[in-house]
This record gives sequence, C-alpha cells and structure tokens, in this order.
Amino acid sequence: MQHVELVEVGPRDGLQNESVSLDLAAKRELIRRLVAAGIRRLEVASFVNPKKVPQMADADELVRSLPKVEGVTYVGLVLNRRGLERAIESGCQEIGMVIVASDTFNRRNQGVSTAESLAAWHEIAAAARQAGVRAQVTLSAAFGCPFEGEVPEARVVELALQAATSAPAEIALADTVGVAVPSQVDSLFRTLRERLPQVPLRGHFHNTRNTGLANAYAALQAGASALDASIGGIGGCPFAPAATGNIPSEDLLYMLERMNVHTGVSLEAMLETSRWIEARLGRSVPGMLVKSGGFPRPAARGSANRGNA
Amino acid sequence: MQHVELVEVGPRDGLQNESVSLDLAAKRELIRRLVAAGIRRLEVASFVNPKKVPQMADADELVRSLPKVEGVTYVGLVLNRRGLERAIESGCQEIGMVIVASDTFNRRNQGVSTAESLAAWHEIAAAARQAGVRAQVTLSAAFGCPFEGEVPEARVVELALQAATSAPAEIALADTVGVAVPSQVDSLFRTLRERLPQVPLRGHFHNTRNTGLANAYAALQAGASALDASIGGIGGCPFAPAATGNIPSEDLLYMLERMNVHTGVSLEAMLETSRWIEARLGRSVPGMLVKSGGFPRPAARGSANRGNA
Repeated sequence: MQHVELVEVGPRDGLQNESVSLDLAAKRELIRRLVAAGIRRLEVASFVNPKKVPQMADADELVRSLPKVEGVTYVGLVLNRRGLERAIESGCQEIGMVIVASDTFNRRNQGVSTAESLAAWHEIAAAARQAGVRAQVTLSAAFGCPFEGEVPEARVVELALQAATSAPAEIALADTVGVAVPSQVDSLFRTLRERLPQVPLRGHFHNTRNTGLANAYAALQAGASALDASIGGIGGCPFAPAATGNIPSEDLLYMLERMNVHTGVSLEAMLETSRWIEARLGRSVPGMLVKSGGFPRPAARGSANRGNA
Repeated sequence: MQHVELVEVGPRDGLQNESVSLDLAAKRELIRRLVAAGIRRLEVASFVNPKKVPQMADADELVRSLPKVEGVTYVGLVLNRRGLERAIESGCQEIGMVIVASDTFNRRNQGVSTAESLAAWHEIAAAARQAGVRAQVTLSAAFGCPFEGEVPEARVVELALQAATSAPAEIALADTVGVAVPSQVDSLFRTLRERLPQVPLRGHFHNTRNTGLANAYAALQAGASALDASIGGIGGCPFAPAATGNIPSEDLLYMLERMNVHTGVSLEAMLETSRWIEARLGRSVPGMLVKSGGFPRPAARGSANRGNA
C-alpha cells in the first residue's frame, strides 16, 4: 500500500489569510483536534513581523503552550535568523524557511532578493542543525509568479540545487498563487527526484484555479513523499475574487483513501474539524466534502435520481 | 501537440439541475455563445418525459430552432425509442443513450432494469444508423452508485463490451454522482482502451468531491479522446449540500491550455459566457476561473504579497 504524509498547514497558511482571527484558545483547540485526527506534522505558526501578519502575533505564546505529543512535529515558518531564534525558543521541533523563486515576489514578501533569502537559508540551516532542530525549505511561486508571470523550471531547479547544499530535511515546491497544472508538477518533481534523489520532496498546492487536487495527484505520481493541505481549504474565500485557499485536507484525504494511499489520518475526524472551523470562522469553507459527505455511504441524494448521466 | 475534444454539456446536464429555468431564447443565446467560443459538440437537450424533467420540456422546439453550423454537432440525450424519434425529428446530428451501471439507479432514473436499457440501446443504435444519426452511449454511475455503493469495474467493463456490439460511435464513462478518484479512472479507461481499441472513450466527471479535474487529467493520460464539461460548472450549487455540478468548462480549459493540450476553444470567450450565465441564473457559479482569472496575466493579487508559501 502506498503511503504519503499529509502535512496540515491550516493553523498557519490557512488562518493567516482569513479575515476572522482566532484567539489563542481557539488555535490550540484547532491544533488539538487535528492531532487527535491523526495529523503528525503541522505548520502551526509563522515567526514573522507581527506588524505585517497580525494573525501570527501570538506565535511564540501559541507554540510554547502546545502539549508535546509523542511523534507529533510542530513546524514554525521562518524567513530570517530572528524568526529562527523565536521558533527555537518557542519549542518548534522543525522550522520551514521560504525562498520565493521569483525575485519580485521575494522582495514583496520578504523585503530582500531571492539571493539574499538563499544566503539566509544557508545560515538558518546551520544554526538549526546546531540547535538540533529539523530544517526544511519551501520554494515558493515555483509554478508561476503573480508579478513576473512564468517561472522557468530551470530557475526553480537551480534554486533547489543551491538550497540543497545546506542539506535540507525536505524541499517543498509551492504553487503559492494557484496557477500550476499537473504536467508542470509532474515535470518539476520528476526532475528534482532525479537531480536530488537524497532529498524528500513535499508538494504545496492552492486550489485557486480548481487544479489543486489534480496537482496533488501528479506530485504523488512523480514521487512526492508529503503533501500540504489546510483543513476546510481555509485561507481563501470561494466567494471572493482570487480565492487562494490551500487544497482542503479532507478533500485530499478522501481522494487518497479511495486511491488506497495510506496517511493514518481519520477522514471522519477531519470532517468534524472542518465543520468546527466553519463555525469558528462564521462562513462556509471551500472544502467540498463537508457539503457532499464521503463515499460510499447509504444516503441517497435528491439529485441522484435526476442525473441522467 | 496533444488534442482532446471538449464536449459542452451545460445546456443539458447543467441547466437540467438548476433551480432557475432559462427560456428558449436564453438557451439559444447560451448555445450561440458556446459555439462562437469554439465548442464543436454540445449536448443541447434531453428528450425525456417533460413531467419528470420540466427544464427540458422545450427540447424539440429548441433543437429545431438552432442554426445549423458547419462542423458543429448538436447532441440529444435519449433514454428510449420515443426519445430517439423526437431527437431525430428535431434535427439532432447525434444522440446519446444512457445506461446506468447499477440496476437500482437505472430503475430510479429510467424506470427499467440495466438489462432492459441495454436492450433498448441495441434497438436505438440500429434505428439511429438507419436514420443516418450518429449514436453513442454513456455508462452512468461507472465509478460508484448513490444507492448500491461501490460499482465493480468488472461490471462496467462487461456492460461496455455488451454495448459495444452495437458499434457505438463512442462510449462515455460517467461519474454521475462525483465519487471517482484518479486511480479508478486510470484503471477503467486503460482496461477499456485495451479491450475495445476501436471505440473512442469520453469522460464525464462531476466535481462533487473536488476530484473532477484530477479525474479529467487521469482520463486524458489513460487515452480519453473527449471530455464533458459544463460552462461555469453549472448543474450543482456549491452552497447547497451535495453539490453535483459538472466540471467547469473554463477551469478544465485553463488546465488543458497550460498543459499544451489543444481544444480549439477560446478561454476568454468561455469566461465571458460563464459570467453571462451567472447573470442569467442570478447566482455565483462553481467555476473558479471566473473568480481568479487566467494566468499569466499582469494583475497582481492583493493576497499575493502575504502568501509566505
């Protein structure tokens, strides 16, 4: 039976892009429910400038207050040395650094060039190793940039090869703005599996253009060992222009289960958590399984006997 | 360059499942816009009992009133001999018969057993041939049934082999209630390509569980020569429980274009048509590209400089 690790990013990438902010207690309850559902690696917070990302202002306090659970890894996102220190002090067992594959986006996102972020990554990787903290790196906008447009695969591959010299625990390829298609995903993942056979690859997809699960499927076929997803697909509102939600964890889980790909996560528990987050955010989430339910199940749908095809 | 035929089913499978009914003029305008966008095969109506499907009561009048366009095929859905006669009299160049792979669903949908529908198909295929009308058949609920649950692949393959004895112009495999996953699609399409190499295969997917485009991608990889889709993904409401919309034509087209798969259809014109149908139905459609726009495009999205991954 095939296996893939489902990495839950709702508490960070999800909540960070929601208009409604959850308080510390609610964030802790969300994380508790996700861990109880079987999630073993979670991106719980980003250690960035609170002025820029107010939703993450309580990152340090949140992570410090999380119960240590055997086999569960809390990941902190960091963009620089200061963030790394905060993540380590707070007790993250793993840090994720982000480098944007397009220079314009990297400057907008991190205030420095891609080359400067790469240099910072080398520094951070070394410091994390010293501190005994696992360090991985995400290459953002790896399939397209909202400012520069097309991002050549060669540029992403080159960036991955350079980042790999600091021995990342994993490299993630992120479709940050949801423009990727399966053929792109297949090509980039296969190329990196070949060029960097020793480095595990993770896929991070957004469903902005409805291709999220197709890209996740392509990444899995091409050798990704882990996939990011957010509970309910939070992070983007389906009713707003340019919805930018991550792929919904429970929808991805449904696809993986039906494909006989093992994750160790309970679909029922994730659906309950998705309904819980809907109530907390006071809006319907982009995830579709909370509306349709799983399969097979006895209930016959009204529309079923009008289908005709 | 790879090629696939995009078959638009919005005027039939889409509108049939919408609460708002379009009048004859609006249906004709929708079809006009789709043809102008480059669609060359459309399922325009179903010739079924108007008492059961009021949205299709004007099928005969609609098809009779459609302008004949060189190279454009209007498809009429029929379930029995009477429907075939109406479709032929109205001027359909092609008819699509439906057989549901699960007996319970076939009885609910068509009032007869799967075996009786299969017998009707043989009769219809012969009569259509005599009338010089192209005839193809769709195997519904080919990936799962809302009443019986799992539908064994062997049963669908057997049904396809029997249907093939009447030399269908094409066999479509339909995920009528949106439960399929890519591995299922890959397996069924590859098996039938092998068993029936002479029969073109079409995929019909619903996005009920967010796997629609992943399934379309899998079908394409496995040798499907045509894919059904509905403009805007109409046919199911994303806000209602158990949304049952077809995969959105413009979202599928975006994926195909970016994958360098040729269809001959204009994405811009389809997006305009999707916005037009939104206005006619008075609701937001499930399609995501009408919200996000295509790519690459100059406009930078507000959320882009908060992504962080």
